[in-house]
Amino acid sequence: MNEASVVAGLRALIGAPSGRVRVGIGDDAAVWSPGPGQLQVITVDECTEGIDFRRTTVRLEDAGWRALAASLSDAAAMGARPLLTVVSLVVPGDLDEGGVILLYQGMADLAARHGVQIVGGDLSRGEVLSLGVTVVGEVRPSNLKRRSDGRAGDVLAVSGPLGLSRAGLAILEGEVDRECIDATLVERAVAAYRRPQPRVAAGRFLGGSRSVRGMMDLSDGLAADLPRLAAACAAAAVIDADALPVDPACRAVAQAMGVAPEDLALEGGDDLELLCTVEKRAFGYLAERVRARLGRALLPVGRLEAGTGVFVRRGGVQRPLDVQGWEALRR
Amino acid sequence: MNEASVVAGLRALIGAPSGRVRVGIGDDAAVWSPGPGQLQVITVDECTEGIDFRRTTVRLEDAGWRALAASLSDAAAMGARPLLTVVSLVVPGDLDEGGVILLYQGMADLAARHGVQIVGGDLSRGEVLSLGVTVVGEVRPSNLKRRSDGRAGDVLAVSGPLGLSRAGLAILEGEVDRECIDATLVERAVAAYRRPQPRVAAGRFLGGSRSVRGMMDLSDGLAADLPRLAAACAAAAVIDADALPVDPACRAVAQAMGVAPEDLALEGGDDLELLCTVEKRAFGYLAERVRARLGRALLPVGRLEAGTGVFVRRGGVQRPLDVQGWEALRR
Repeated sequence: MNEASVVAGLRALIGAPSGRVRVGIGDDAAVWSPGPGQLQVITVDECTEGIDFRRTTVRLEDAGWRALAASLSDAAAMGARPLLTVVSLVVPGDLDEGGVILLYQGMADLAARHGVQIVGGDLSRGEVLSLGVTVVGEVRPSNLKRRSDGRAGDVLAVSGPLGLSRAGLAILEGEVDRECIDATLVERAVAAYRRPQPRVAAGRFLGGSRSVRGMMDLSDGLAADLPRLAAACAAAAVIDADALPVDPACRAVAQAMGVAPEDLALEGGDDLELLCTVEKRAFGYLAERVRARLGRALLPVGRLEAGTGVFVRRGGVQRPLDVQGWEALRR
Repeated sequence: MNEASVVAGLRALIGAPSGRVRVGIGDDAAVWSPGPGQLQVITVDECTEGIDFRRTTVRLEDAGWRALAASLSDAAAMGARPLLTVVSLVVPGDLDEGGVILLYQGMADLAARHGVQIVGGDLSRGEVLSLGVTVVGEVRPSNLKRRSDGRAGDVLAVSGPLGLSRAGLAILEGEVDRECIDATLVERAVAAYRRPQPRVAAGRFLGGSRSVRGMMDLSDGLAADLPRLAAACAAAAVIDADALPVDPACRAVAQAMGVAPEDLALEGGDDLELLCTVEKRAFGYLAERVRARLGRALLPVGRLEAGTGVFVRRGGVQRPLDVQGWEALRR
């Protein structure tokens, strides 16, 4: 069973969105119109202990932060401003009341940074700690970005270097000896894994740009997410591996692990950077504006082309992508 | 750890709702205003295998139906019209793609009855099957009912007889020999447990009545939910056990189990009837209108009084309530 196949089955069962619903199953968030000229986005993300995090490598506050971050990132990827959240928390037997408060403390810290209110939720007991976070946001209709709106010829760009969170995970899971990595890089990578920053300001800015066509977030890694974007756009995607913006910490960790830094960066989820497709002739100007306005580079990673499939160009040679990102239902 | 204490801790951590949020943590649903004159409700409910249902007693379609029903009922309890839902599904290893589709089939069946659209969700793997269902609805500001708006002197009333779902559970779990119960009653009770009907039309109608002050749904049973309503209203509640509207199936099952029918009806969750507090002098007229409009009786169960606590009056004697309903975090 894989996610794409199940999602296709569910779309067939449920049918196309109608009435006030504009975007249904299959994008980063659903979109509907509560009233004339208004659009809201709604998205949910589940974070489960043992699959999405371990209590041995993140604190409870971090687990709360990470869960909310994933849903805020989905709202950001639509160009929306997140407003509020409801949380379904499954509480295992070894978690006491103080532990529940710590989980919420982490969510509250991140929520406050983005002016998001935690408005409600559900508490239930269960075997395994799990946080289901729903976020509602709003977006000006002209700013809405769907992942399917990219076109052949567009530049593929990301809102920041890739692989930092994956590097943090490798360090925390002992895949590398942290003594072999520069301490500053270790600290940055671990912080990025524990407290990922959803690109809310970047999402709203890119949402407001006419040169940006398609957008999604990179929660599962470019290797998993780019094929979804390319398929949604009915286009092929080519990654330029030689120019891939790999975070220095990811580069150092990959070298210590003896793997190609580009491959680790492609596979790594949780970066929560945004992936967008940009009209080619407008890319330079947009990147300048992003730098001036957000103090952040908009980094090209490749392009959309006519056709299907995802390819990696390395040293002038183009091959099908053979790195795997995160697949939610893979066992 | 109990739910009330955790919820109090979370309210202290998160603070009072502000800005456009009108009702935060602690009611059936949160309420916020997306624009002038508009109110939306949002609520989430988690249904976990082994706690909220067993696959030995309900089919997968029923599990999907039940999960959505719980959240629709929360929206109904605010007086709102439910509009759309997002679903977070945790898929265990023994559930295949066909099983996931069956879960959604049950949700889609119920959603279609109420004009609700399933607009998105999240699929993840895990140890235990769990469905987290978020529902968004809208309500005219004058129709919003909070559970805290009841006053001493109000009549407590429910939208239908109690204990039917609990009777179905007793039959399915083998707490009674189903051969001892009339077959028609067995069928009704089992159907009520497997496919509970959220009182969406009743909720909207009662929402529109000025005589209805406070409202909530009875997902955890009157014995668990009435103390919450009374506490929210800063009032005492008295249940009139001699006049309690116990469903005939619950009465038959209780007799076969050798327990008091009223106690089984008080303890039984999942009825999804609405509990409301009604201005005393308007009760008779409202009950007539409910019968005329919805073909359903509005049944008195007791009253709110000055003071605190919940009491049961039986044969002229009043004692503190000593039946327990469902407590989400009890182990």
